Amino acid sequence: MKKLINSPGSVVDDALVGLAAAHPALAVDFERRVVSRAVCPAGPKVALVSGGGSGHEPLHIGFVGPGMLDAACPGELFTSPPPDRILAAAQAADSGAGVLFVVKNYTGDVLNFRLAAELAAEQGHRVATVLVDDDVAVRDSAAGRRGTGATVVVHKTCGALAERGAALEEVRELGERVVAASRSFAVALAAGTNPETGRPGFDLAEDEIEVGVGIHGEPGRRRERLRPANELAATVVDAVLEGNRPGPGDRPIVLVNGLGATPLIELYVVCAAVTARLAEHGVTPARTLVGSYVTSLDAAGFSLTLTAADRLMLELWDAPADTPALVRA
Amino acid sequence: MKKLINSPGSVVDDALVGLAAAHPALAVDFERRVVSRAVCPAGPKVALVSGGGSGHEPLHIGFVGPGMLDAACPGELFTSPPPDRILAAAQAADSGAGVLFVVKNYTGDVLNFRLAAELAAEQGHRVATVLVDDDVAVRDSAAGRRGTGATVVVHKTCGALAERGAALEEVRELGERVVAASRSFAVALAAGTNPETGRPGFDLAEDEIEVGVGIHGEPGRRRERLRPANELAATVVDAVLEGNRPGPGDRPIVLVNGLGATPLIELYVVCAAVTARLAEHGVTPARTLVGSYVTSLDAAGFSLTLTAADRLMLELWDAPADTPALVRA
Repeated sequence: MKKLINSPGSVVDDALVGLAAAHPALAVDFERRVVSRAVCPAGPKVALVSGGGSGHEPLHIGFVGPGMLDAACPGELFTSPPPDRILAAAQAADSGAGVLFVVKNYTGDVLNFRLAAELAAEQGHRVATVLVDDDVAVRDSAAGRRGTGATVVVHKTCGALAERGAALEEVRELGERVVAASRSFAVALAAGTNPETGRPGFDLAEDEIEVGVGIHGEPGRRRERLRPANELAATVVDAVLEGNRPGPGDRPIVLVNGLGATPLIELYVVCAAVTARLAEHGVTPARTLVGSYVTSLDAAGFSLTLTAADRLMLELWDAPADTPALVRA
Repeated sequence: MKKLINSPGSVVDDALVGLAAAHPALAVDFERRVVSRAVCPAGPKVALVSGGGSGHEPLHIGFVGPGMLDAACPGELFTSPPPDRILAAAQAADSGAGVLFVVKNYTGDVLNFRLAAELAAEQGHRVATVLVDDDVAVRDSAAGRRGTGATVVVHKTCGALAERGAALEEVRELGERVVAASRSFAVALAAGTNPETGRPGFDLAEDEIEVGVGIHGEPGRRRERLRPANELAATVVDAVLEGNRPGPGDRPIVLVNGLGATPLIELYVVCAAVTARLAEHGVTPARTLVGSYVTSLDAAGFSLTLTAADRLMLELWDAPADTPALVRA
């Protein structure tokens, strides 16, 4: 394991110190591990709070700022934050118009955010939750689909709607519509290595890939030989469109996302291949975002997220934002 | 070699197709490999043109747009673009106020941009050049210091000054001052693999790092054992400050840059370590940018760039920009 760290146990805290140093617009509560906006919104607005295990940066800490999240609570690597930290994030973020929890569908996150919501309600906070479950690789699990790239689309669109002064129920309803319109699928060329264990989540031969992998190194649908990007993209596009083809009025938002160790030039090669395969299906993206936004430590590979956006979602996607990882002028 | 590509020979062209698909604000001339703004500036302004070998993305193609470059010409992987392509970029970009070439100090780039400048002058274009040579790892080479991270600072500050309507000579002079105020140094945990050769630029043992590495896998000052991020950062900070300590009136701009395969969480760990070491030297960054901006294919590691900025440079650093890789609201 070769990593730029001090010790496996200090990675999350050290990274938060670096985040705070680089982004004075963020307030970082190091003790409770809560990242919030240094300058609160002018008046009451619905507060967006998200979080989950660390190791997926910039998700979620890099999306705190005007137009997106009000607070994020990062857990240990690949481990949900405990309920009291989530509660602390809700307290830091609530400006009087209620709090929306954006939760990725993993057992620990679902449980801890639910407990935090109960604790927050006891303290008089109004809390609603959007559960993100966009990963079509998992089909028959009792826990349902995993939450991955669609989280970014929910952060961006719901964040913009909250900024416009919409009510909590309205923002939650948009979030659920975005989730329903979103599907994702990922391919890994190499698993990430959790510094706590020092070993990759799984081993692949020099010519093997994991198709349908999760962002914590969860195994996928199958193991295959590495193929040219055009063929891989076709597999991934077909999986994402299966059973969720955008309608004639939809204006798809496409996210070509790197898993952490894949350089941008390869993501652009994948983007070209994805765009071409979508065209073969008659699907024309309205917007395409390319970069590493939902990562899996130093895993190599990519995920594709497609949101069959309506006009409102697209307008909110384009709205101003000012966060470490996503800025819209 | 595991990469998301179609074939080694098509990487640059495929990536340009993806770039064009994701960024409709860019015009891509696929035949001549010139990336320029789809919408030209309203009136004549100094045009910024840069380029160099591919494999360093988002440099330079990701910095084309309002507030930064007017055009970029990407060469083959790690290979300078030929003079006629650079000329084509200058032609595409010149709006009547002259063209500033921003050139990294490598033999091929220097030669080809010089030839292109001569060709452009013959056609009536006014051309000036800023040569970027910030990498202090190279001390005694006849070719001088290599150009790396400072290129981003030159793109951003000169781009903003050009946007304000400054004259060619004024923008060139600023660029030279930024270069003179900038120093960089890089450490690699793994070399990048050029798909044309299929082998990494050099081999490192599981516990080895290359200290003072170049962005084309050029060897550094020495090979060392991997150490904790705090110690590595101290080495790098000390190298960057050696002989170029910011003066009392300077407001340092710091770039903590990933080499391509290093995930953001590690870069934030490095950022914390760099900030702490700078504090020990009495240096307080005015701005810190963290991310992978000047890469070396899928090399793992980081570089540090420090620009001892004056008030004008800082103001220009903060000015609006709207490019694929850097947006300022």
